[in-house]
Amino acid sequence: MFQERLADVAGQVEACLAEMLLPMGTAPLAKPMRYASRGGKRLRAFLVMESAAMHGVSDAASVWAAAAVEALHAYSLVHDDLPCMDDDDLRRGQPTVHVKWDEATAVLVGDALQTLAFECLTRVDLHADAQVRLAMVASLARASGGRGMVLGQAQDVAAETATVPLTLEQITELQALKTGALIGWSAEAGAVLAGADPEPLRRYAAALGLAFQITDDILDVAGDAAKTGKRVGKDADAGKATFVSLLGLDGARARANSLVEDAETALQAYGDRATALREAARFVISREM
Amino acid sequence: MFQERLADVAGQVEACLAEMLLPMGTAPLAKPMRYASRGGKRLRAFLVMESAAMHGVSDAASVWAAAAVEALHAYSLVHDDLPCMDDDDLRRGQPTVHVKWDEATAVLVGDALQTLAFECLTRVDLHADAQVRLAMVASLARASGGRGMVLGQAQDVAAETATVPLTLEQITELQALKTGALIGWSAEAGAVLAGADPEPLRRYAAALGLAFQITDDILDVAGDAAKTGKRVGKDADAGKATFVSLLGLDGARARANSLVEDAETALQAYGDRATALREAARFVISREM
Repeated sequence: MFQERLADVAGQVEACLAEMLLPMGTAPLAKPMRYASRGGKRLRAFLVMESAAMHGVSDAASVWAAAAVEALHAYSLVHDDLPCMDDDDLRRGQPTVHVKWDEATAVLVGDALQTLAFECLTRVDLHADAQVRLAMVASLARASGGRGMVLGQAQDVAAETATVPLTLEQITELQALKTGALIGWSAEAGAVLAGADPEPLRRYAAALGLAFQITDDILDVAGDAAKTGKRVGKDADAGKATFVSLLGLDGARARANSLVEDAETALQAYGDRATALREAARFVISREM
Repeated sequence: MFQERLADVAGQVEACLAEMLLPMGTAPLAKPMRYASRGGKRLRAFLVMESAAMHGVSDAASVWAAAAVEALHAYSLVHDDLPCMDDDDLRRGQPTVHVKWDEATAVLVGDALQTLAFECLTRVDLHADAQVRLAMVASLARASGGRGMVLGQAQDVAAETATVPLTLEQITELQALKTGALIGWSAEAGAVLAGADPEPLRRYAAALGLAFQITDDILDVAGDAAKTGKRVGKDADAGKATFVSLLGLDGARARANSLVEDAETALQAYGDRATALREAARFVISREM
């Protein structure tokens, strides 16, 4: 159920982003922007659209919030891959934007994808009430900016040159910002669009986001570049503190498992309507992608 | 009148941005974000707040749109100064962010300042009607994104490596995107906030923006680094087409003068209420800053 919905969501988001990028025609950035916004798991889009569907919100509406968060995520990846940041040459199994084009293009593509994210949220298709769309602009800005995702990135960069490795508490905070904030925004989006209480989805997303990051660290040690689509072993090589270095491989797996239980429990009140979201939580820690 | 209002506007915008950055506390990006968003002429903020005041909109409201466009402008400068872009080490008379800190910090500071710009526009203080705030989010996204300012930046980067210098038509289009779009958004903001017709301000800003850029090219040839606060002669050194290389120094000055007349004429219907905006147009071509 989760896998089918994920594929379905991915298709809808691709179409939506293609529509947003259509007016760019053959402008210099059109091609690298399309390239950078294609592919990926679309987990954030799934969280938006499934949490929305669970509240009776149509895909035709929620897809704009899904496209927004995927554009924003894509921007963060393009900038994160830059030589001055993580210096990655492979992303989603393809050359990164600065490798395929150049660094200037990668900076500008990331910039324009961030702008596109906010533009998606202004579409009347998302919600008839401008107040709701504006609230989503404000919350996405908070989740992704200098007190959210970008702060997590900055902490991550600072950790690279720090003489003392991060503690478990510090790395948990860092990840809650770097990946957790956007995952949280995505899961809560459905409740926000429906005017429902986002609290259960907030708890679900907090557990899911952390489980996701712990699994990323596990895959970095035990994964396979052919399956993950990115270089592995680089965190360990860099001597960075990770959930695996702090908890051990078994400890990290146990923690991820217990977080998935927390995520499932958080959605209890939704009963069967939350089946796909529960499956997503289990998938996140079992994935090899 | 213009100079006093410019100083007044600058003070209000500084206070507004300081308030927005306050919750960041001592987070890694707080200091470089404050650094990057300080100073500058604040011409865009002036255009927002003066066009708003001319329509009876209070400073307490319009300052949020002014802060938004200045945060957005600051982000574009930080990224534009990066080694992979214009590679500038001096901005507003101070070391650029990547020189004072490092490239990763400059990428992240720019990213977070863009986010902050959109966040400013969600403030209820800007306008009681969410529909108006949302329209400003949408129009700022269009003006600054991959079909606006960032497209102009990309055309500028492409021109650096082109074998044939740009024509007058191409450079005019490039500048209309790179600097004109944001100047246009700023000048129109007052009419949008008041629900008035933005057309006269659109014509004013189109002429002003082009005059501004022509003057920039003149200053690059005939200016003084101590006064402009940035390195001069670099476009000529790089063999780039500029308004001066295409029109000659006298031709460029004549064109800038005639554009200022166009800008003044566009505001005729406003009578004396537009005095400061008219002075701004004359200032733009006489400035040595």
